[in-house]
Amino acid sequence: MSGPADLPGLTGLPGLPVPLAQRVRERQGDFLLFALTPPRRTTAPEKVAEIAGRTLARLAPLDLDGVLLYDIDDESDRTDQERPFPFLPTLDPADYLRDHLGAAGLPAVVYRAVGKYAPDELGAWAAAQDPTDVLSVFVGSASRDTPVRTTLPAAHALRTEAAPDLLVGGVAIPERHTRRGDEHLRMLAKQASGCGFFVTQVVYDVNAAKNLVSDYRYACLEQGVEPVPVVFTFSVVGGVRTLEFLRWLGVDVPRWIANDLTHAHDPLQASHEHSAAAARELLAYAHASGVPVGLSVESVSARRVEIEQSVALAHELRSLLG
Amino acid sequence: MSGPADLPGLTGLPGLPVPLAQRVRERQGDFLLFALTPPRRTTAPEKVAEIAGRTLARLAPLDLDGVLLYDIDDESDRTDQERPFPFLPTLDPADYLRDHLGAAGLPAVVYRAVGKYAPDELGAWAAAQDPTDVLSVFVGSASRDTPVRTTLPAAHALRTEAAPDLLVGGVAIPERHTRRGDEHLRMLAKQASGCGFFVTQVVYDVNAAKNLVSDYRYACLEQGVEPVPVVFTFSVVGGVRTLEFLRWLGVDVPRWIANDLTHAHDPLQASHEHSAAAARELLAYAHASGVPVGLSVESVSARRVEIEQSVALAHELRSLLG
Repeated sequence: MSGPADLPGLTGLPGLPVPLAQRVRERQGDFLLFALTPPRRTTAPEKVAEIAGRTLARLAPLDLDGVLLYDIDDESDRTDQERPFPFLPTLDPADYLRDHLGAAGLPAVVYRAVGKYAPDELGAWAAAQDPTDVLSVFVGSASRDTPVRTTLPAAHALRTEAAPDLLVGGVAIPERHTRRGDEHLRMLAKQASGCGFFVTQVVYDVNAAKNLVSDYRYACLEQGVEPVPVVFTFSVVGGVRTLEFLRWLGVDVPRWIANDLTHAHDPLQASHEHSAAAARELLAYAHASGVPVGLSVESVSARRVEIEQSVALAHELRSLLG
Repeated sequence: MSGPADLPGLTGLPGLPVPLAQRVRERQGDFLLFALTPPRRTTAPEKVAEIAGRTLARLAPLDLDGVLLYDIDDESDRTDQERPFPFLPTLDPADYLRDHLGAAGLPAVVYRAVGKYAPDELGAWAAAQDPTDVLSVFVGSASRDTPVRTTLPAAHALRTEAAPDLLVGGVAIPERHTRRGDEHLRMLAKQASGCGFFVTQVVYDVNAAKNLVSDYRYACLEQGVEPVPVVFTFSVVGGVRTLEFLRWLGVDVPRWIANDLTHAHDPLQASHEHSAAAARELLAYAHASGVPVGLSVESVSARRVEIEQSVALAHELRSLLG
């Protein structure tokens, strides 16, 4: 409270939520995002506007801190298994935001699959963003064999140069931590190259998520680094096909949950309950451990019932954040 | 309520707890056991009596449904890793029960490492037990290379012949399920050969425990078999050495819990809280899934503070059972 005439800073204004970028910068968690995949590239422009309008109407009651916009890449070179849903190129998330979602005034976290862009293009985009409203997540390629136009380290170097104020996050994968045990060190390395937050893929294995938070926390303590927010993503599953798709994406679903979803009369409702319980457990753990944690909800499939249930899940997660 | 003059059966007598053997036979869970390792074989007889007296005094306030008596076997052929605590032969649990604990009138589950006994010896022991007060758990050898006097299948066949009323349980290992994925099928096979309940080793990985309960439940459903009680065992950890010993015994301790215990100011208290939380979660899950679950507490080490904290843990678990 050192402003002129004791005017409170933005953070201190009672009743006004702290904007996402400021929260992340101040290393606060407890925010809620909704993750969207832009419409397919083949969608007619008037149809895109209609989809965007319907999406914003759905999200309006949620009191979100922001939206997250995925930059979908064909990840079929990541695995030999057949993709359960076909890959269809989608609109550029930055274009979709600018042309269709900007009016809502919601902060946005725009993913960049950096390998898809030339360095100039990526740098120019980063420099053109208003860092109070736009954040980004830089994602490297899914496999070493994918030809890339910009590597992840190059993208971070570019950003530091061209857009020093743009908050950029990285991907953190609890499942990779289960296999290799060093994801917390990767996070610290990414943090050193400029990541100000992390986002996970969909979480069903809370134990793996807690392992990562814990190892990250103690590594931060050891290295004298302050932990940055980690955004955990949750989603519902409407049936066996979506469950298979989650697995194809690399999501570990514990057997007991997979069994429940496979046998449930209403898998959508059952997965909603599992996800809400997982989020609750993870939040309680994060609060106790001092690592700032945010929540994100996505609809893995494009089926209307799954989208609507995801919105209901976001409603419930909002209530967990008080 | 079909007895003469509407006299309730034993189960229905209000205020009187249902004895352990009856509970297990009726496939009810929600009972509490305390697991004991008999004193070392070199202990002087008067000292053994003193230990037993102290133990019973400690356990008296716990309102236990029974005690579990381990039959310790040198398991050093199970693994190449050095045993963190030395192996010291202990008194035969059946002798210890008969000579020192019987007076307490508590039902007892007596372990039999069946490979240690000749078939005649094992059969005679089984036949001599009062099946209303004594149950047993038959344990096979820890490794294929151990020479055995009676194999596990032979022990079950013997028991069916010599002591058809004696309730015998088997060992179920969630960690083995994590590695091989077929522990639920082993349980069903053991059930078919006569096992009326199962007991696990110490549980710190609730997720693994839930996976096993879930797979067991759905396999029972599929085969039209009623699930029998599964007793999950909990313990406290006083420090890094006990944690190492747990791991040596084959217990999976999730990284986030191991981290917490390693960094805790008071690992004993921290492990108590982790164990109570795990038991609470597992019980809630078991109640929802319809698999009867009992709880057992043991002290992994012989240190006085760890024993006392285990008793405190048993107190807390008792309160979970209502």
